[in-house]
Amino acid sequence: MKLHNYFRSSAAYRVRIGLALKGLAYDYVSVHLAKGEQFAPAFAAMNPQSLVPVLETDDGTLLYQSLAILQWLDETHPEPRLLPTEPAARNRVRSLALISACEIHPLNNLRVLRYLTDVLGVSEEQKNAWYRHWVATGFEALEARLAHEPATGTFCHGDTPGFADVVLVPQVANARRFDVDLTPFPTIVRIDAACRALPAFQAAEPSRQPDAA
Amino acid sequence: MKLHNYFRSSAAYRVRIGLALKGLAYDYVSVHLAKGEQFAPAFAAMNPQSLVPVLETDDGTLLYQSLAILQWLDETHPEPRLLPTEPAARNRVRSLALISACEIHPLNNLRVLRYLTDVLGVSEEQKNAWYRHWVATGFEALEARLAHEPATGTFCHGDTPGFADVVLVPQVANARRFDVDLTPFPTIVRIDAACRALPAFQAAEPSRQPDAA
Repeated sequence: MKLHNYFRSSAAYRVRIGLALKGLAYDYVSVHLAKGEQFAPAFAAMNPQSLVPVLETDDGTLLYQSLAILQWLDETHPEPRLLPTEPAARNRVRSLALISACEIHPLNNLRVLRYLTDVLGVSEEQKNAWYRHWVATGFEALEARLAHEPATGTFCHGDTPGFADVVLVPQVANARRFDVDLTPFPTIVRIDAACRALPAFQAAEPSRQPDAA
Repeated sequence: MKLHNYFRSSAAYRVRIGLALKGLAYDYVSVHLAKGEQFAPAFAAMNPQSLVPVLETDDGTLLYQSLAILQWLDETHPEPRLLPTEPAARNRVRSLALISACEIHPLNNLRVLRYLTDVLGVSEEQKNAWYRHWVATGFEALEARLAHEPATGTFCHGDTPGFADVVLVPQVANARRFDVDLTPFPTIVRIDAACRALPAFQAAEPSRQPDAA
């Protein structure tokens, strides 16, 4: 398999963690987003969204969108499981992941921040306040659920890392990069630390990737 | 089942379509977002995100996040299927849905538009340009995939409506509400029309809900 990838993309980071948890090897194909390589014709033909990650299987099948790639991984390589088997538990885990994936990350990615500054003329300070606002709004809800729902364990769901943790860790890394105050979110911080103690999460860290600046 | 709902919420609209396609009856519990009812203590205790939809099962289980609720529906009431059974096809359908769910809708929902105008002081014209920009960016990619991938049929995936269509139709409705020019997206327009000809999609329309203005 080939993972079309960028060290700092948090969507790609999710898939790297998933691949590492499954123990799957892959070729790392760098698409340097800061240099605009996602807009090169060859890549745009592969993914009309001009976004990473894209997972390319050995038979040439192209798999898109980090959350959909992670679920493909879980359906084709079931052990260890990223999602539990019981439907209500699967809803819990997916819905925890979607707080970051739908309500935080889309508001804070590179192209959105560029629109704020380049088109709307927003100041650097206002841009950073926007970033922190959406992290805090999402994390308040996530913290409330993780702290109160009995299914939370060492990790977001029980005592093995899974789908919700794979999405959480890159989001916490982004929050730290933008100096978000994490003291109101002790459960998130605890789970993030438990994840980052594991080799699979460490191997996927942005700073360890071949295209890291 | 009870669906905590709001006629104009496009995330709730997705779940209404899914329930109607499955032929499942439910009680409609209105949470009037424009009046701020999602912030009432009783609702916020039920969903710390203060967002609809929430699906409450007869045994009191609370299910969150429209995409995760739809997948719960598909896992507990498999026929008719919203997702195909083959993993690469499931990736295709999920990734088509996630273009709207992760790259368009989160940027254009009510609280984000309010932040733009109320906090950043963006003009009405700039706000509408922002809205149309993210719809057009997402729809360009979606149109390219739907127009070129051979698995597209009468609907997003083959000739039966499913998960990607359930997400597409509310997004097209939003685009129309903000006067987005849809002429560059003929495949999207064709599939949206095929969906809206079906009773399940009609029953879920915002204007037909009990709390419609």
